[in-house]
Amino acid sequence: MTLAFQPRGFKVCARNIGIKQGLLDFTVIASEVPASGAAVFTQSAFCGSPIIVGREHVKDGVLQAFVINSGNSNVATGEQGIQNAREIVRLVADELGIKPEDILPSSTGVIGRQLPMDIIRAGIQGVGRDLKDGHLEDAAVAIMTTDTRPKVRSAQIGDAVLVGMAKGSGMIEPNMATMLSYFVTDAKIDPETLQSLLRDVVNLSFNMVSVDTDTSTSDTVAMMANGLAGEVDLEEFRRVFTAMAIELAQDIARDGEGATKLIEVRVKGANSFRDAKALAKSIVNSPLVKTAIFGTDPNWGRIAMALGKVDTQDTRIDPYQVQISFGDLMVYDKGNSDAGQLDALTRYLQGTDILIDVHLNLGSHEATVWGCDLTYDYVKINGEYTT
Amino acid sequence: MTLAFQPRGFKVCARNIGIKQGLLDFTVIASEVPASGAAVFTQSAFCGSPIIVGREHVKDGVLQAFVINSGNSNVATGEQGIQNAREIVRLVADELGIKPEDILPSSTGVIGRQLPMDIIRAGIQGVGRDLKDGHLEDAAVAIMTTDTRPKVRSAQIGDAVLVGMAKGSGMIEPNMATMLSYFVTDAKIDPETLQSLLRDVVNLSFNMVSVDTDTSTSDTVAMMANGLAGEVDLEEFRRVFTAMAIELAQDIARDGEGATKLIEVRVKGANSFRDAKALAKSIVNSPLVKTAIFGTDPNWGRIAMALGKVDTQDTRIDPYQVQISFGDLMVYDKGNSDAGQLDALTRYLQGTDILIDVHLNLGSHEATVWGCDLTYDYVKINGEYTT
Repeated sequence: MTLAFQPRGFKVCARNIGIKQGLLDFTVIASEVPASGAAVFTQSAFCGSPIIVGREHVKDGVLQAFVINSGNSNVATGEQGIQNAREIVRLVADELGIKPEDILPSSTGVIGRQLPMDIIRAGIQGVGRDLKDGHLEDAAVAIMTTDTRPKVRSAQIGDAVLVGMAKGSGMIEPNMATMLSYFVTDAKIDPETLQSLLRDVVNLSFNMVSVDTDTSTSDTVAMMANGLAGEVDLEEFRRVFTAMAIELAQDIARDGEGATKLIEVRVKGANSFRDAKALAKSIVNSPLVKTAIFGTDPNWGRIAMALGKVDTQDTRIDPYQVQISFGDLMVYDKGNSDAGQLDALTRYLQGTDILIDVHLNLGSHEATVWGCDLTYDYVKINGEYTT
Repeated sequence: MTLAFQPRGFKVCARNIGIKQGLLDFTVIASEVPASGAAVFTQSAFCGSPIIVGREHVKDGVLQAFVINSGNSNVATGEQGIQNAREIVRLVADELGIKPEDILPSSTGVIGRQLPMDIIRAGIQGVGRDLKDGHLEDAAVAIMTTDTRPKVRSAQIGDAVLVGMAKGSGMIEPNMATMLSYFVTDAKIDPETLQSLLRDVVNLSFNMVSVDTDTSTSDTVAMMANGLAGEVDLEEFRRVFTAMAIELAQDIARDGEGATKLIEVRVKGANSFRDAKALAKSIVNSPLVKTAIFGTDPNWGRIAMALGKVDTQDTRIDPYQVQISFGDLMVYDKGNSDAGQLDALTRYLQGTDILIDVHLNLGSHEATVWGCDLTYDYVKINGEYTT
């Protein structure tokens, strides 16, 4: 796979250094010049060591490289884990001839084990020499774990190019899903604007995805804008960036562990975005909804259940006002339902893209979220041995 | 099965009236005299029609009968559904020669279809005549759906007897789990005391159970105290009642849809009960924790993940203070873990009763919750056709 567009001044090195057997497990994405940097991280109280180091390094709004390993998440590893994350950053900085504090590190994999530092120290040697121009898609492959396909997009905004990539759920060892996503652009955008833009975009894309309700200790979305293409129309950039992030978020949901179907849930007519999102998330996270969609069971009553259980803040749901549709098929209309539509619903559920549309008919706020079905393979992938 | 103790003055009728093929689907539990009544219901905004009628009828603190059908939950059925619930109560009241407003109705089963009222009207005929003394265990069998065993307990408190029964997750048609539980006693307890006692007990038992995070539209715990045995030591009654409700709650978790293991999670050392409960629920509800326990995967890092993702209100988790144990096996001790214990943990997970003990070492509050593993059978039961 080759991307249509490559931004100026970014280089990549992707390697197998031996943390995992035979698969790419280490990658560096570097800018030729210091770039505006922005990042948002997991809210987990048990966050990984690289998150702690990354938060420090992005604070001044300048980044020049991302370094990512898979096979071990460096989480719940105490003070030694933080020292190891710092050492990796220092060794990569030496290789690249840049400042350690301009590097943002990420790790994904099993929790609660120290990184194999001997292997990593040896693996970092020569990384600076091996950096290659214009192949950002290589990094999208290198950050995969048990993702079944790389998730990467490119787009042009004026003279500038934006490339985004993400990894989703699945490990080479069964382990928790970790979402990592990186964006690089040669557009010139100042760090404050970049951070605020990134936060807005994440709130409409990655924060609207749920594979299995289990927030990772390592989730990271990070961005560099190195300015080599000069300034761009910021509104156009925001529009393209948002669309790209939503596509990557959908890719993650569609490729969730064991998933066979993408589920999109839209909730409209709430009194706040907060409530619309909470209701949509309740539907997309419900194991009863997810298993029904896997089994093409036209049990739409579970949508009513998932709405009813939410402790909404600003919206008082009235079952006599609610409308529930699958695609164009309305199954519940303000207290009335038509049992004759169950066959049509079963046929609709045989597709791979399921749209659930709920209108509360109360307020003017709406939210759209993405998830996937719950399958035998999810149980299999996550019930097997780590060891 | 015969209960060791039966309270004075309660009668039961259990029937198959044809809502479901061949299985008991209709039961009445009645007191000979008006009793103090108390009930707590689902908080669902999409609650069932019987809940709406039950809330009205328990308001004055007097109940004389419970009437319960399975096979259809009478939820999302609009005004017609409420009229149907009222008609059932009226017909049963005529049969029993008691007031309709002293009857609390419950329904469990599929959502979004009107009750088959012709069948139900015919089925109620002769119920009054068929009421039998002293076989409350019959009702525990009649409220079962796909529960694999009845859940019923009896105990003596002074001269009085307390009987409790519950149904858990699973339907004859795959559908959402509904928890129904009924307690009857011949102790003399005034309605206000009974309601406050019931609420306290439910908060420590049924509200601490989660099979699959999906709050039913029909959950009901109801109680009658008919006073025929006179007054009792209320503290002893509370102690026995709490213990019985916890046992029934554990029964429900152990018999959750597809479950092979009971999971008990204790979180200690939080700054509030609210936080301890939220953290314990996050662990017991995590699909990654549930699948790991099903697969005897010693992946204890998922406990750290489940703690980290909770937005706690009063407690700021410090990973350097946290201790995580399975049974007596400490796997994470304030930042340190011992990879050598993974084999012992695998052996522990081969049992059917899994205890996860988390100490935050911050405050003095604790909570205990119960759940079950997530298995292939859960996906199977809930992915199959309703129709």
